[in-house]
Amino acid sequence: MVGPGSESRLPRSDLAARWCIVMLISAVLVGPSTCAAKTRHFRWEVDYKYWSPDCVEGVVMSINGQFPGQTIRAVVGDTISVELTNKLSTEGVVIHWHGIRQLGTPWADGTASISQCPINPGETFTYRFKVDKAGTYFYHGHYGMQRSAGLYGSLVVQAGEGEKEPFRYDGEFNLLLSDWWHKTAHEQELGLSSVPFRWIGEPQALLINGRGQFSCSLAASYSNSTSAAQCKFGGGEQCAPLILPVLPNKTYRLRLASTTALASLNLAIGGHKMVVVEADGNYVQPFTVDDLDIYSGETYSILVTTDQDPRQNYWIAVGVRGRQPNTSQALTVLNYRPNSASKLPASPPPTTPLWNDYNHSKSFSSRILALAGSPRPPATHDRRIFLLNTQSKFNGQTKWSINNISLSLPPTPYLGSIKYNIHGAFDLRSPPESFPADYDVMRQPANPNSTVGSGLYTLGLNTTVDIILQNANALSANTSEIHPWHLHGHDFWVLGYGEGKFAAEDGDKRLNLNNPPLRNTAVIFPYGWTALRFVADNPGAWAFHCHIEPHLHMGMGIVLGEGLDAVGKMKIPGGAFACGLTAKMVANNDGHS
Amino acid sequence: MVGPGSESRLPRSDLAARWCIVMLISAVLVGPSTCAAKTRHFRWEVDYKYWSPDCVEGVVMSINGQFPGQTIRAVVGDTISVELTNKLSTEGVVIHWHGIRQLGTPWADGTASISQCPINPGETFTYRFKVDKAGTYFYHGHYGMQRSAGLYGSLVVQAGEGEKEPFRYDGEFNLLLSDWWHKTAHEQELGLSSVPFRWIGEPQALLINGRGQFSCSLAASYSNSTSAAQCKFGGGEQCAPLILPVLPNKTYRLRLASTTALASLNLAIGGHKMVVVEADGNYVQPFTVDDLDIYSGETYSILVTTDQDPRQNYWIAVGVRGRQPNTSQALTVLNYRPNSASKLPASPPPTTPLWNDYNHSKSFSSRILALAGSPRPPATHDRRIFLLNTQSKFNGQTKWSINNISLSLPPTPYLGSIKYNIHGAFDLRSPPESFPADYDVMRQPANPNSTVGSGLYTLGLNTTVDIILQNANALSANTSEIHPWHLHGHDFWVLGYGEGKFAAEDGDKRLNLNNPPLRNTAVIFPYGWTALRFVADNPGAWAFHCHIEPHLHMGMGIVLGEGLDAVGKMKIPGGAFACGLTAKMVANNDGHS
Repeated sequence: MVGPGSESRLPRSDLAARWCIVMLISAVLVGPSTCAAKTRHFRWEVDYKYWSPDCVEGVVMSINGQFPGQTIRAVVGDTISVELTNKLSTEGVVIHWHGIRQLGTPWADGTASISQCPINPGETFTYRFKVDKAGTYFYHGHYGMQRSAGLYGSLVVQAGEGEKEPFRYDGEFNLLLSDWWHKTAHEQELGLSSVPFRWIGEPQALLINGRGQFSCSLAASYSNSTSAAQCKFGGGEQCAPLILPVLPNKTYRLRLASTTALASLNLAIGGHKMVVVEADGNYVQPFTVDDLDIYSGETYSILVTTDQDPRQNYWIAVGVRGRQPNTSQALTVLNYRPNSASKLPASPPPTTPLWNDYNHSKSFSSRILALAGSPRPPATHDRRIFLLNTQSKFNGQTKWSINNISLSLPPTPYLGSIKYNIHGAFDLRSPPESFPADYDVMRQPANPNSTVGSGLYTLGLNTTVDIILQNANALSANTSEIHPWHLHGHDFWVLGYGEGKFAAEDGDKRLNLNNPPLRNTAVIFPYGWTALRFVADNPGAWAFHCHIEPHLHMGMGIVLGEGLDAVGKMKIPGGAFACGLTAKMVANNDGHS
Repeated sequence: MVGPGSESRLPRSDLAARWCIVMLISAVLVGPSTCAAKTRHFRWEVDYKYWSPDCVEGVVMSINGQFPGQTIRAVVGDTISVELTNKLSTEGVVIHWHGIRQLGTPWADGTASISQCPINPGETFTYRFKVDKAGTYFYHGHYGMQRSAGLYGSLVVQAGEGEKEPFRYDGEFNLLLSDWWHKTAHEQELGLSSVPFRWIGEPQALLINGRGQFSCSLAASYSNSTSAAQCKFGGGEQCAPLILPVLPNKTYRLRLASTTALASLNLAIGGHKMVVVEADGNYVQPFTVDDLDIYSGETYSILVTTDQDPRQNYWIAVGVRGRQPNTSQALTVLNYRPNSASKLPASPPPTTPLWNDYNHSKSFSSRILALAGSPRPPATHDRRIFLLNTQSKFNGQTKWSINNISLSLPPTPYLGSIKYNIHGAFDLRSPPESFPADYDVMRQPANPNSTVGSGLYTLGLNTTVDIILQNANALSANTSEIHPWHLHGHDFWVLGYGEGKFAAEDGDKRLNLNNPPLRNTAVIFPYGWTALRFVADNPGAWAFHCHIEPHLHMGMGIVLGEGLDAVGKMKIPGGAFACGLTAKMVANNDGHS
């Protein structure tokens, strides 16, 4: 076993002949130093790099020449400092720290147009923020579709000294799940904004820690089909799977995070049960499952006990849910040592549940409840905002709209506009709090035309806000899609899910105010609603959006302005706003970094 | 004949069966209004667009949805105002007005990192400058390799009222020449900066006014080879050639401009002589040629008299010089009306001179001399700078260097750094004025390692500066390439070309101080030198660089700082410098636009 954050590879001689496997020896028994809180410094350079994530050469956005970016490991109370230099030629860049609430540091949230200006080529910006809660997080680009381009990595916050986690385990692994296209993110963006619309299609591969297989399959030998060849790795390939080496009769924590651009996923481990213990950096009431759904933007910790036949290895399989899949499962192996890592499991990989078996998904979601003793939501709300999610048309373009407004991000960041009280940087008219009562969510929109806008939902400090996400039929008949919504700057309580249109009397009765889970991402199911509650206690400008990146690019999001007076008094590093209408204000603000 | 700047197409019924031809009716008999100088306003949006420049679909940078961008036509003394909005998703953009000296408006030169900050996505910047000299110009992106991506168009300045041009013609056509790759400019940039180096290779097509043919040939029927099919156009294709309709026994002015990323070109018209009358916006002593070399960054006007058999049409052919070609000729047709535009010429297209017949090229260059009465150069220079062009290595990357420094453009624009007297934005150490006397230009570099830098050559106002461009052997043995050098903000006199290393005594004797042509672009031939002279009379920060875009991207350029005190007193629109270290200065400068 090796130290924190390290990944080592077996010497080449140990690589098996059939498919030589790059091994992840990261079952961390000893975490990062658990002494007093400290600042963890990183110097990163973002650049494009040729890479073969799925055995086909393409171009990724790399951090310090690596894809995915390095895993950040820290301890509760630590400060993370990332000095990010943009080495791209003509593109700006930012990095969002997904799940970190950025209490008091809204400028470090890493959302272009919202919390900061894009970092220009050749320039450096330093993110500096505290990690105040143990859990499984990740980071990713939040400008255009740079997440699709591969700009992401894992962020793990371990419990502090004396902080006892409500479960025990002998080692841990970290699995960052993503999807990958052979078309560049630039071309995907273009297709999405073209008239006629060109959809990006299903991904060519699913990746586990940036590794997948497009042109071969690890499990081809189980299949009668000749469509994919058995993978043959010589060692060191960028697309060779990271194997999970385990010892029998131990318990392992698997930290799962999905940074997919599009795909909703399901993960299963052949022959093994999984106990779900954490979701989005919050402990949940442990429950046992055979497979687990994970939507883009979500994280989980699961416990796996290696209680199966130790002479065998076992598949870990990740497949697509919620959309008609056209992508092979991502596969890797739970390798019971001392078996060879290349020993094929006795059975084929577990089958992913049917993509449109939504009952299976809903059943899973409904089992996620807060661990006893977790913070409970306020009993009532001060304000309730209804957000109708529709697909729409604007100037011939296909859009996603919220209450019939498709989000168009302005060049001057909201946070800077608020801080410097600048007028004209975004639409001054407040966006609607609701939608027409007679809107039929079960049918195609009667009038598909929407507008674009950049209005701000302004929230009073420390008010309790409910958001009722309301799904509807898309532009095509009999179509309603899954949308995982992610809130920046906060966790929210997921008070409940329902079918059809949320009805106040009935809906309220069905909300769980007893032990709803705290999360930062929650899904709305097709034709359904999801009710969220949070306390607006973090002054800043915060994105709330569908975490499917092409959907966000098509306008599926809103921006919340919270505690505007408090933002005006904040000290913010000048570099955050050296663009647009705020550029001229930078001189008056020396910043604190 | 139609009005200025218009291009009309024949009705579909007139399109011939064999290859229906989109016709360019732009033989301008009536120019733009020649009354008092006026301001010509343009509102442009830059965005990516699917396009098929060579009959293969790719992605171009479009202006108002068109590729190439619209032709700007103006009259001497006019002011051009282009309100440019960046509609890209994550990339900055600028536009350089190639050949316009920007007297007094250095901030409008459109060079990222030099004259301005890149215009961020969603932002608008207004270029406003005077066109003070009749001639043939063009415009193009000047950030990363956005010119390769297709960001370009033509700019024609016609003589003012009462200003008589030294030749007459009955109509004119405008031919903008470019080269096109199927790999995106982003991927080209990546390859150029990768270790190991990946060269972009030869273009897939040459384009005339943005139109070429990759998968078919207009002239396939002349060939015994079956490698290319005869083109069949149905009408309206983006890759259908723009035909030149002419009447017999007239004289036409063809305005030629080359915005190629790489290719040096040669143009010939079957059966017709050409009289060269203008180069880079300056009149030259007319001379007659059968074919004409044109390097990237150059423009020419040629006169063609339609004195051949009027029952025939004639090929216009453009081929590659100076590099082993792997690209088909660009073709279009001089269509003697009323012949059908689709009537194939009697003979095959003119053959392009052998790519490495440098004597042919040198002979052509040496014939370009100033028209009698043109401004003559000062008899002596105040300063002479020697610039050795070498290929080199830096941290494993392949670079081009000038006096062993490869240009690395800083994020804060030089012009802003100079205006606001900011320290630290670029290297303070002045770059070298010369290179070691014992450097052997005929052999590979003894030590190929160079450094990168951003130093400024500071020129005293109104001093006369000579630049001796010295070519050398590249990294490979027996290799020396053509480099067309382009100077911003000025024309220079081309005093002469020579072989081998410039030797002061001998070299000076060979300089032409009598009637050297004024130009803004001049080539150095393999293993040779080129001597230039100009007066540093235009305060600003000016790029001087190889106009081959990948070469510039690999560092082949320098930056001149001129009249620094005068720059400090200039009024400059604040938007020019809302980035980097200058962002905070913007507040103190209200600008004039």
